[in-house]
Amino acid sequence: MALDPVDLLTRLIACPSVTPEEAGALDLLETELTAIGFAVTRLRFEGDGSYPVDNLFATRGEGGRRLLFAGHTDVVPPGDTAHWTSDPFTPRIADGKLYGRGAADMKSGIAAFVAACAAIPPEAGTIQLAITNDEEADAINGTEKLVRWMADNGHHFDFAIVGEPSSAETLGDSIKIGRRGSFSGKVTVTGTQGHVAYPHKANNPLPVLAAVATALSSERLDTGTDHFPASNLELTTMDVGNPVSNVIPMSGTLRFNIRYNDRWTPESLADWVRARIGSVEANGTDIAFEVSGAPSRAFLSPLGTDIETLSATIAAITGKAPEYSTGGGTSDARFIAQYGPVVECGLVGPSMHKADEHIALSDLTGLTEIYADFMRRYFAGVAA
Amino acid sequence: MALDPVDLLTRLIACPSVTPEEAGALDLLETELTAIGFAVTRLRFEGDGSYPVDNLFATRGEGGRRLLFAGHTDVVPPGDTAHWTSDPFTPRIADGKLYGRGAADMKSGIAAFVAACAAIPPEAGTIQLAITNDEEADAINGTEKLVRWMADNGHHFDFAIVGEPSSAETLGDSIKIGRRGSFSGKVTVTGTQGHVAYPHKANNPLPVLAAVATALSSERLDTGTDHFPASNLELTTMDVGNPVSNVIPMSGTLRFNIRYNDRWTPESLADWVRARIGSVEANGTDIAFEVSGAPSRAFLSPLGTDIETLSATIAAITGKAPEYSTGGGTSDARFIAQYGPVVECGLVGPSMHKADEHIALSDLTGLTEIYADFMRRYFAGVAA
Ligand SMILES: [Zn+2]
Ligand SMILES: [Zn+2]
Repeated sequence: MALDPVDLLTRLIACPSVTPEEAGALDLLETELTAIGFAVTRLRFEGDGSYPVDNLFATRGEGGRRLLFAGHTDVVPPGDTAHWTSDPFTPRIADGKLYGRGAADMKSGIAAFVAACAAIPPEAGTIQLAITNDEEADAINGTEKLVRWMADNGHHFDFAIVGEPSSAETLGDSIKIGRRGSFSGKVTVTGTQGHVAYPHKANNPLPVLAAVATALSSERLDTGTDHFPASNLELTTMDVGNPVSNVIPMSGTLRFNIRYNDRWTPESLADWVRARIGSVEANGTDIAFEVSGAPSRAFLSPLGTDIETLSATIAAITGKAPEYSTGGGTSDARFIAQYGPVVECGLVGPSMHKADEHIALSDLTGLTEIYADFMRRYFAGVAA
Repeated sequence: MALDPVDLLTRLIACPSVTPEEAGALDLLETELTAIGFAVTRLRFEGDGSYPVDNLFATRGEGGRRLLFAGHTDVVPPGDTAHWTSDPFTPRIADGKLYGRGAADMKSGIAAFVAACAAIPPEAGTIQLAITNDEEADAINGTEKLVRWMADNGHHFDFAIVGEPSSAETLGDSIKIGRRGSFSGKVTVTGTQGHVAYPHKANNPLPVLAAVATALSSERLDTGTDHFPASNLELTTMDVGNPVSNVIPMSGTLRFNIRYNDRWTPESLADWVRARIGSVEANGTDIAFEVSGAPSRAFLSPLGTDIETLSATIAAITGKAPEYSTGGGTSDARFIAQYGPVVECGLVGPSMHKADEHIALSDLTGLTEIYADFMRRYFAGVAA
């Protein structure tokens, strides 16, 4: 039963699934997956301060090793369509390339994986797909809730692949084995307002704010780990907003962001921040620290046989083993990493989120081959 | 030739001379001063970014010692007149007090001095008056230009009295022999904007801004002088205004104000600030310092025979020698101090700028007596 990944990708791109509208993309996947033997569950999550989101879980096979493929059908808005050569949601093939919003990020990864599944006999092992329609925006009612639902319902996995565009320049030149985390915080120092001519009646919070800023930015968090660069804190703003030159202000705030490696958790970072603040002489002011929003966790997948198998598969097909990367921003893989080892392996990324987003057709068939070949080795237990 | 200070004061208060409208107050003074032998020159100064202002110079007598009396006819606005017991510009006498805007600050000082002059024979010495109608607002086309005009036109003085309400609780309990200066500045640190995930492509100005803040606020300027408390710098604001948690900002600013004593000039303070900034590692950022507005100079009048004579005069009339104070904000005396010794000696201040501003009638006659008695001793060269 053969399934053409190019045909599937063009049909996926034709669904204008800008977050959070699935616009038929999940319906299409449900049809295609059902046709190749998957049991599909549609899950609509809502609440927690965000819009409702459609998600799809699919599973095929019983017993054997369990593989999870995760991805998203939603795409970022096309932006000014005047910058596109043709309509972003009308797939266009030219010079061996396929153009359209979501071509790289990441309808191609989904199309390649589904096509690969069609080539794998159902009895080989358990294949699961977790597809959300909200990775590009809030990501509150998407993958995080989907993988929690899976765990709650006994759908475990031994290894997971996220189909994000992980390649830098050529197909398979890089896979992502981890991602840095992101942690934002705010510190408010409150003193006593007063007149600059009578400082003894006031307590200026700004020298303390400056000392906190120095305490946070002057000490390195670490010097890096095997697969990550050093964690890094950046002050992003400091604000008082006092327009009057003869008034000592009551309070001032600073905000910072930390991009951090696998040595840290949001909890250990909060402890570190509190310790740094604790090293500052408060001088009678009140220093309040709060975490801003929900931090993204860092993760690093343990380097084991399955990653080696994926690397060997890629090397066999492209002629070159991939780099193990942990670069870039954040992705939904961080939610999956809470439940098991995960790597990101997909197409060439640089055109993502831009006008005339595209992929090479040969990369799409190559990726389909990589996924299928990997599954054969993975389920057979073939060592790298 | 007797002149009743209470009568003159009520007529001055009836002129609603809110800065910069003289509203007849200077016309009235011109008439009264001319009547007692003064040659009056009206001077309208304008430009330098401020509104035009009426000023008055008057002189009487030739030779002998030269005394300058300085003051202002302008008053601050009455504010919400609902807080006044009666109309602010309709003088009201009740329980031995005279109420009205400008009663304390400082039409009373002018009324007392003019009345005192009427009691002094013209041949006693040279008396000069420099009266502006803009002390309470910009003060750009007022006393500063008036005293420069005087110097340019050969009107010098040996000693000056400013009639500001210098007394704290009882008439003559305090005279001001100096004032602190005020100096405001701004520091802008400019780096290179970037994304928090790629700090090596950016240069965050905020750690440098924090270091500048610490450098400016951590070192004392001095420990005080004989007649002044320690000079003091206060950070008044720090601002970046970056709303985005994943962006390293391009620049940040801080502002500060220094209240300083007679050890410093605006020029030496600017040098000090530059040296403090120079102690900070700029780390490739650009650190720009600028002085904000026109600093007010500090001054301290040399303690000489004339101040002792004034003190002895006050002690003879009130029974108690005055304190020599340098407290409070800034006054026009700073401009006069550039040309000769000056003290501030006037009525009781606390009601100034408030609703139901008032003075005690007995204080007004007491002050008239002090001024007249001082002039007799000053011109006679009677030692304290
Ligand atoms: Zn994506
Ligand atoms: Zn005044």
